[in-house]
Amino acid sequence: MSMTLFGYYRSSASYRIRIVLNLKGLPWNYEAVLLNRGEQQQEGFLSRNPSGLVPVLESGNASLSQSLAIAEFIDEIHPDPALLPANSIERARVREIMGIIACDVHPLQNLRVLNWLREELDASDAQVTAWIHRWISSGFVAIESLLEQHNSDDQFCVGTTPTLADALLIPQVYNARRFALDLAPFPRLCAIDTHCQSLAAFADASPERQPDAPQ
Amino acid sequence: MSMTLFGYYRSSASYRIRIVLNLKGLPWNYEAVLLNRGEQQQEGFLSRNPSGLVPVLESGNASLSQSLAIAEFIDEIHPDPALLPANSIERARVREIMGIIACDVHPLQNLRVLNWLREELDASDAQVTAWIHRWISSGFVAIESLLEQHNSDDQFCVGTTPTLADALLIPQVYNARRFALDLAPFPRLCAIDTHCQSLAAFADASPERQPDAPQ
Repeated sequence: MSMTLFGYYRSSASYRIRIVLNLKGLPWNYEAVLLNRGEQQQEGFLSRNPSGLVPVLESGNASLSQSLAIAEFIDEIHPDPALLPANSIERARVREIMGIIACDVHPLQNLRVLNWLREELDASDAQVTAWIHRWISSGFVAIESLLEQHNSDDQFCVGTTPTLADALLIPQVYNARRFALDLAPFPRLCAIDTHCQSLAAFADASPERQPDAPQ
Repeated sequence: MSMTLFGYYRSSASYRIRIVLNLKGLPWNYEAVLLNRGEQQQEGFLSRNPSGLVPVLESGNASLSQSLAIAEFIDEIHPDPALLPANSIERARVREIMGIIACDVHPLQNLRVLNWLREELDASDAQVTAWIHRWISSGFVAIESLLEQHNSDDQFCVGTTPTLADALLIPQVYNARRFALDLAPFPRLCAIDTHCQSLAAFADASPERQPDAPQ
């Protein structure tokens, strides 16, 4: 069954799904939805996803939105290699890190949210940067502490193979760098980022390598 | 294995887990973490959850944070009654609704976020209310549209039995009412809320019935 990912090169949630698809070694098509031109709010796209957000995965007749749902779906229908551990506690550790990134950090730096801060609350550039740093930092403090408690190596977030936690972490580290957050307080997290970036599945998913990235 | 939920009566993410535990018919202990007194930032709690957020589930020796991770964990280790459908597309539909609420709506009305708007960006009460309404509304528009596309009855979000989607939706509707959002544009969502509230598992989980609620 062919799959098409509707995404945007710099969308962190799209980047997650590109990593997942690459880790699975699946063929997939990419359709850019140009957020910088507001294409996600146009009728053609809203009929695929009434939220007006990327990513959307089209698989057979189904259009699915929400990156966590898409990631779990791909892992269920293409179980090899597994991107969640077999053990329930370890699965929960993966989803705990996913939750920190997808719920506590990323929603607060979404483009529409930053636009609202600027347009409705007159936030200055410095205030927007402080806001972004505040939420990424506290999420990364929590993840660094969880890695210290539970992680045995510096290659992946949980266990010795890539999981969905890594597929979420690496795009968030990319965003942190983009917003010039000092990553020195997060050595474990940075070591995992360095290791994952050395793998083709992660590197090929990076924003710069997508066809809609500025050349 | 006994389970203890560390939560707060009015925390939406804690409310989700109370519903899940009740739907499973499991015995559980409740430990209130008084957010209004900042207990979530005190050392005793931070050692359980470095994020300084509720809920936390203690199960055996494990402390787990993040409500999505906790909900999936409970559903895995206590599979009966199942709170995710058997079919992968339907599971994805459940997680899609979970994602809209847990990623697109709820993080933006978290207490620490609203405090930041007030304290760092000098947002007025009216501006904070507009902010809250903006994000709940767009999430509810998306859910109402998904229900219209995929849902066959007006009792539950997906299928004919309660799922994790309902465990997330009902606390979010509670919050919407608390913030006086007009729910008239969302008749399907309201019908599901009315039906779920008629069930003890949902009603007993409501904020007002918790021991830390003001008497």
